[in-house]
Amino acid sequence: MLVALELLGLAAFAASGAFAAVWARLDVFGVIIIGLTTALGGGIIRDVLLGINPPTTLRTWPYLAVSAATALLVFAFHPVLARLRRAVLLADAVGLGLFAPAGTAIALNAGAPVYTACLIGMTTGIGGGAMRDLLLREIPLVLRREIYAIAALAGAVLVAVGHQLRWPPIPVTVGAAAVVVTIRLVSLWRKWNAPVARGTGRPAGE
Amino acid sequence: MLVALELLGLAAFAASGAFAAVWARLDVFGVIIIGLTTALGGGIIRDVLLGINPPTTLRTWPYLAVSAATALLVFAFHPVLARLRRAVLLADAVGLGLFAPAGTAIALNAGAPVYTACLIGMTTGIGGGAMRDLLLREIPLVLRREIYAIAALAGAVLVAVGHQLRWPPIPVTVGAAAVVVTIRLVSLWRKWNAPVARGTGRPAGE
Amino acid sequence: MLVALELLGLAAFAASGAFAAVWARLDVFGVIIIGLTTALGGGIIRDVLLGINPPTTLRTWPYLAVSAATALLVFAFHPVLARLRRAVLLADAVGLGLFAPAGTAIALNAGAPVYTACLIGMTTGIGGGAMRDLLLREIPLVLRREIYAIAALAGAVLVAVGHQLRWPPIPVTVGAAAVVVTIRLVSLWRKWNAPVARGTGRPAGE
Repeated sequence: MLVALELLGLAAFAASGAFAAVWARLDVFGVIIIGLTTALGGGIIRDVLLGINPPTTLRTWPYLAVSAATALLVFAFHPVLARLRRAVLLADAVGLGLFAPAGTAIALNAGAPVYTACLIGMTTGIGGGAMRDLLLREIPLVLRREIYAIAALAGAVLVAVGHQLRWPPIPVTVGAAAVVVTIRLVSLWRKWNAPVARGTGRPAGE
Repeated sequence: MLVALELLGLAAFAASGAFAAVWARLDVFGVIIIGLTTALGGGIIRDVLLGINPPTTLRTWPYLAVSAATALLVFAFHPVLARLRRAVLLADAVGLGLFAPAGTAIALNAGAPVYTACLIGMTTGIGGGAMRDLLLREIPLVLRREIYAIAALAGAVLVAVGHQLRWPPIPVTVGAAAVVVTIRLVSLWRKWNAPVARGTGRPAGE
Repeated sequence: MLVALELLGLAAFAASGAFAAVWARLDVFGVIIIGLTTALGGGIIRDVLLGINPPTTLRTWPYLAVSAATALLVFAFHPVLARLRRAVLLADAVGLGLFAPAGTAIALNAGAPVYTACLIGMTTGIGGGAMRDLLLREIPLVLRREIYAIAALAGAVLVAVGHQLRWPPIPVTVGAAAVVVTIRLVSLWRKWNAPVARGTGRPAGE
């Protein structure tokens, strides 16, 4: 079931990339490449930072197949699929909930210190979306609004705490995933946003 | 002769970066850095993904010298050199034809699975241009129009198929390069473009 | 004292990132992430290129703590702190002066050829700021104006020359840092800029 959830999360990430690419008027290959990058980018960054070569996400063909097929479906049927926006947001939250805790656990197993593992886990969750926005010339959405990075970080910290206290890893990871999904969905539902700095912005002459 | 073609391809990549940087009004050091990044970026990404440290392209001084010298020439003589646009496009196609198949072969030799090697080979070909566009705040051209990534992927797949069937590597790589160059030049000549999704773009509220 | 200067440089880099993020209206987590990226990004790129996993800057908790705390201070008190612009520029020059020579020395110790070490050292100095500008959708400032990359490169070359001539490493690194800081501050004071290409810019039809 974990594998099925993982593929669901990858498909949601790929769909979010493909929608953004279609709206930016990219061609079909651009849509597939952005879909793959969004789905696999977080894991690629994680593995590059940990020295796992070549990255696991590039070596696992079901990941590639599911991501590319999802991007292609979005390319072909995006006017219909755009109505599934809520389903995509839910699946995206599941993906974030799986990838951030799993990235933290992988980093801990690779011998990283706990705070390093938390940062790498958070990056695993948010890195694909950040690469999508970079390639499409947007300031990454995750940095601008909504509770997203902090949900990923909460899941990462929970896994790291469980690792320090020698709790059994499987229930901890599942619990961390549940925490991430809950924070993410409640913040979407209640329209929570993180605070922005007060003040009048960039001073003259900058 | 392969080495001469490789340096020609690097020079073409460096020239495309330097022209874009001059047009974006960067200073002379910015032009050189963008030229180097465009020429060497694909190989750097390939080696980072494969764990080849430090990247070969940064360790081979003729690559650095040819790329930097080309960027400096473009900086100094860009109004004259802009007339050579067709020659630069031809040399760029040669570069793509060499780097995508060679990147695939390097990834296969490093033990990557075939589909991973194809993706890494394609990235070797298109990565430098994508980094150029990212640094200059453009959506990467390769994702937007023209047959470019798919030409690189075709060459990569050919090398991978040859590797699986144990064909002799040198003729396969040369043949793959010829295929890439042909696809690229014919698509330029016939103004082929990959399809863009139908529809009215981003729905309201996104 | 070197450690104190290093943390001062990191704080200056984090502050420059946090100011830019506040002005771009990012939320508090975005400001912290951009602050961390600006401070630690150069070292992360260096370690990824050299195969040092996970990157040292992500493994050293005082680096993380000082960078995150600085970003948080900027978020909270940016209208007051913006008056310290000169102090931040001075500290930023100190950071550049430390990180570019130190990055070169680390690359040489990892066995990189001298010209590779110079490029990696320069990248260590300018990489964090370039990542800041990329994430905020700006053409990296370091490529556009001011004497910045060349100051970093001068320090890197000095360390490499000293290494080749077997000069004692500590005084060489200190001297290189002094050269970087001097070039950077004099160019700021005298408003030196690197030359931009002559001509009318991008030709029609590009």
